Amino acid sequence: MAWPDTVAPVALDRAYRLINHGPTVIVSAGEGVEANAMAVAWCCALDFAPPKLTVVLDKATRTRELVEAHGTFAVSVPTVAQAALVRGIGTDSAHRVPDKLQRHGVRWVDAPEAGPPRVAGCVAWLDCRVLPQPALQAAHDLFLAEVTAAWADTRVFRDGRWRFETADDELRTLHHVAGGQFYAIGSPLKT
Amino acid sequence: MAWPDTVAPVALDRAYRLINHGPTVIVSAGEGVEANAMAVAWCCALDFAPPKLTVVLDKATRTRELVEAHGTFAVSVPTVAQAALVRGIGTDSAHRVPDKLQRHGVRWVDAPEAGPPRVAGCVAWLDCRVLPQPALQAAHDLFLAEVTAAWADTRVFRDGRWRFETADDELRTLHHVAGGQFYAIGSPLKT
Repeated sequence: MAWPDTVAPVALDRAYRLINHGPTVIVSAGEGVEANAMAVAWCCALDFAPPKLTVVLDKATRTRELVEAHGTFAVSVPTVAQAALVRGIGTDSAHRVPDKLQRHGVRWVDAPEAGPPRVAGCVAWLDCRVLPQPALQAAHDLFLAEVTAAWADTRVFRDGRWRFETADDELRTLHHVAGGQFYAIGSPLKT
Repeated sequence: MAWPDTVAPVALDRAYRLINHGPTVIVSAGEGVEANAMAVAWCCALDFAPPKLTVVLDKATRTRELVEAHGTFAVSVPTVAQAALVRGIGTDSAHRVPDKLQRHGVRWVDAPEAGPPRVAGCVAWLDCRVLPQPALQAAHDLFLAEVTAAWADTRVFRDGRWRFETADDELRTLHHVAGGQFYAIGSPLKT
């Protein structure tokens, strides 16, 4: 088992940079055949080192049940090339569409590291461990988590920076507005 | 007093769409000469209706003291045209640079509505009321808030959707990676 050749680990104190620009992400959890994944726009960095993040997971979702049961999940950062996949797993619930992952083409990364299931074809991944906040989870669907490992595709993230402008536009991150309206991330600002 | 002609209110149940695509924002609070503002990348929607959001405010900042003292703040969504302003108020603290707002060209919206100070020249504004979470604020610098009013510039946000592609590129939102590296939001995906 191995990550694709283009993928490299990201130092933990730089992991926040993988989501700092506000991409829509995929949250996945569970093991084996019960593993599931959903699209999530409401995921945000919370701390630098150790890196932490927040994520909002609706009570109606199967993925949330798996996050609560396992205490771990992955955040995968999808691309323009995966827009149909993201729309599909953001719309269908495994409760109503048991084969939603197959239907929308979700495959797992074939990585040597143990951990939560990570979505293949993305450009960044953050393994997360839930920092239990039962009251927040119940009242606001808000989960706090510590990032325990991170990787990125070096075609678009190298030396701690995104490099979208030097890669295929299909590898740009997705930014959801509402109802399936997405923007791709755009041009870097001159410094 | 009046908003610019191009600004219109946004229905509360659509307010989340103003930040759903992950822009870097400006958080401002306080009254009169003590009002202050800071750039914030870690701001995220939390609920649809009533709309809520989360924001991470470091303990070292003057703006956080004002948010805690007043219980209200504004989230303003800045543009490419304001990149220097955003960099400036994201770097300087009013504790060390008392004239930081003047130095970086921050002006307040001249609006008829009472409320927190809102930054002029931005393309969206969300008035917020803190939902006190003393333990979260102390341990994680994490604030929960309800959005009580919202406005947007109709040149780029109309009928509940962003319309960056039909306006000047200078009105695109900013997305911070780290250390002053920003991307502008890019192209809409075909549906």
